[in-house]
Amino acid sequence: MNKVCDSLYTAAYVITQNDARDVIENGAIAVSGNRILCVGHTDILEILYPEARRVDLGNAAIMPGLINAHTHIPMSLLRGYSDDKALMDWLTQDIFPREATLTPELVELGSRFSLAEMIRSGTTAFYDMYMLEDSVFKAADDMGMRAVLGESVTQYFPSLSCKDKEAYFELVRAQADAWRNHPRIRQAVVPHAPYTTNPELLKECYALAEENGALFGMHLAETENETATCLKEFGMRPIPYCQSLGLLQPGSTFFHVVHADAADLELLAEGRCAVVHNPSSNMKLASGVAPIGAMHKYNIPVALGTDGPASNNAQNMVREMYMAGLLQKVHQAEPTACPAQMALDLATRGGSAALHDPHIGTLEPGMKADFIALDLSAPNMQPVHNIVSNIVYAATGAENKLTVVDGKELYRDGKFLTCDYEALYTEIQQARAWARR
Amino acid sequence: MNKVCDSLYTAAYVITQNDARDVIENGAIAVSGNRILCVGHTDILEILYPEARRVDLGNAAIMPGLINAHTHIPMSLLRGYSDDKALMDWLTQDIFPREATLTPELVELGSRFSLAEMIRSGTTAFYDMYMLEDSVFKAADDMGMRAVLGESVTQYFPSLSCKDKEAYFELVRAQADAWRNHPRIRQAVVPHAPYTTNPELLKECYALAEENGALFGMHLAETENETATCLKEFGMRPIPYCQSLGLLQPGSTFFHVVHADAADLELLAEGRCAVVHNPSSNMKLASGVAPIGAMHKYNIPVALGTDGPASNNAQNMVREMYMAGLLQKVHQAEPTACPAQMALDLATRGGSAALHDPHIGTLEPGMKADFIALDLSAPNMQPVHNIVSNIVYAATGAENKLTVVDGKELYRDGKFLTCDYEALYTEIQQARAWARR
Repeated sequence: MNKVCDSLYTAAYVITQNDARDVIENGAIAVSGNRILCVGHTDILEILYPEARRVDLGNAAIMPGLINAHTHIPMSLLRGYSDDKALMDWLTQDIFPREATLTPELVELGSRFSLAEMIRSGTTAFYDMYMLEDSVFKAADDMGMRAVLGESVTQYFPSLSCKDKEAYFELVRAQADAWRNHPRIRQAVVPHAPYTTNPELLKECYALAEENGALFGMHLAETENETATCLKEFGMRPIPYCQSLGLLQPGSTFFHVVHADAADLELLAEGRCAVVHNPSSNMKLASGVAPIGAMHKYNIPVALGTDGPASNNAQNMVREMYMAGLLQKVHQAEPTACPAQMALDLATRGGSAALHDPHIGTLEPGMKADFIALDLSAPNMQPVHNIVSNIVYAATGAENKLTVVDGKELYRDGKFLTCDYEALYTEIQQARAWARR
Repeated sequence: MNKVCDSLYTAAYVITQNDARDVIENGAIAVSGNRILCVGHTDILEILYPEARRVDLGNAAIMPGLINAHTHIPMSLLRGYSDDKALMDWLTQDIFPREATLTPELVELGSRFSLAEMIRSGTTAFYDMYMLEDSVFKAADDMGMRAVLGESVTQYFPSLSCKDKEAYFELVRAQADAWRNHPRIRQAVVPHAPYTTNPELLKECYALAEENGALFGMHLAETENETATCLKEFGMRPIPYCQSLGLLQPGSTFFHVVHADAADLELLAEGRCAVVHNPSSNMKLASGVAPIGAMHKYNIPVALGTDGPASNNAQNMVREMYMAGLLQKVHQAEPTACPAQMALDLATRGGSAALHDPHIGTLEPGMKADFIALDLSAPNMQPVHNIVSNIVYAATGAENKLTVVDGKELYRDGKFLTCDYEALYTEIQQARAWARR
């Protein structure tokens, strides 16, 4: 306890998300540099740290920052551009033709705008994959977010980012060199999906991840059609196919995993992989319902993600918790399925597993200082019989009044502290003209 | 056009919800008393009404107020008090014992608090049923909302409101006398459900509605268990049972209607009844998925409701539109199901049908002046490729900056104009002590 407490944040509630899921009324969190020093009752922490800068958040709930474990943030450029279409029509008629005209500048703009949305709504870390990802690295670094970022790749070249496969490998190696040992940003190698790659490319990607100390991630088992294609081409369902290529490893994270049977889940468990559930996207695109209850029985870590803003259409992890809970209940015809605490676990502790960072997702001494504070003064947040229930079932995502990442305040009381939001807001409106060209 | 325009509201978008679903960019709405005088382009309306008070809402979308067509607003007292339980455990172990200790004062407090929540999130009219409903009439009248309100009744007496059935009839007649010809409030006779009433009571309730010029509403076909019970007791499914009692009439509105087959829907269509869909509640309580696509095929008007704040747990119609859309898509395995425009229709035009008020739900000359304005300056609301998509798929419900009912402003720029929110906010916290007694 000889470290200096820089700041002492106090509020009506501190939701620790520790193993006991302690909620502290009239709680406080002491921060030293980029770490949490102590969590406890305000009256005790005030005595322990009398010299600390005090930030009293009033009637609010301090909680671990939410972790958006699967998204494509530059796609805020295309929010609402095309909806309510079958997946392939949506992609081929609307999304792909627009994406073909993207530039690094537009990708950076879309990223910065999504970062603002995430920071405002209480997300402190995310796992992203897209094209021209250099722009996402730059934006996330600059705006102070925690992120796992990967340049997405398919077998089709030239792509927006690379003229051929060799160029892609070079790009990944350059990103590795540029971002190695960054305090907040980690690289992932992220081939797009089994149906847009081939076995050779997938094996090379995994080797590339190992070579560079990067994580490995991929869309997997998202649609029925993917399973059918994989069975036809390789004689295996998507998950056994990935296992046959050596991709099911402890540093691997798979996005969606909607269509997985018991044998599939056993393979994921054996590989100690993490899964990211995307309820809104799976509902909106009618992909199906991921068996997250069964995944938990197999002890597979499950995180939560929004997917990109063209298929969600928000980067709102508070809403995503609500969707996760309600979707399981109705799908399983079981109102006890995915209770509020589990939904919150997905967005915090699950996110830690999916980003392979054991120092995020809970508020405990020694953890990274990534936290938010939801204001409880709006009518939807009162009365408080159960603070976790109010957050999962009644909050909108607009309650957040403080976002701290790595000990640094990124947002407080309506003000963005690491970007010029007014300028971004003006600039993003040019996406409308771009989309109509 | 010889009426005086009292106020001219202008904004970046006016979403009319008229038959053509016109969206007017740089639009305006002229209000005269409690009616809409004119809707059109700002530059034209400025010329038509140069003397009008001007309210420029800036980068916002003016739209019809949302209509919450089924709820139990006093239950904000029990928000988050009990969740994640099977319906009967939830009711008998937690909800009923608490409700047995309600007082008119507590019901009024819960109502006022929910009214604040609805007014803030953009609801301008609602259809409520609960006990001690006099308190709800009083609160809705006082806070300026539009409402259809009914004293709920079961066959079990004494109830919280009435010592016996005769007392209930007297109460309904007294409410009729008290609220007849009110400009915003209309009475409904609302027996609770087929499984908590008997045929005689239901017929008497319907007659009571007719006698008093009141509407008629009831929970119907909500769960599988209800269908089984009805078949066992009366040899009919719930909807044919109601038809046999003469309840399927043009002034009738039925809440939930989850378990309805083609023959059931035909009966509802023949009776020209309205249905209220409650996606969040049906998901949270695992009741099932209402066949709203099929209802539309039978030309049954479908509205949207949140259900009470103990089973939702918010009174947020923006979120409810999102749930309606996504639930249909995943349930039907069809991404084109319930597109954004249909979800918005449910919450506006559908609400007009369910509240049996043809003068709400759209912004057109001669309609009642019930409208809201969603601010578009937060990151989740930009860019605007499709304003309806952004409202249904990306908004949180916290965007609303103006609520006008019957021509009167109830909320503007964060301020409640018909209640002392600070006092309510302090008072509602006593619900916590009450719930723990």
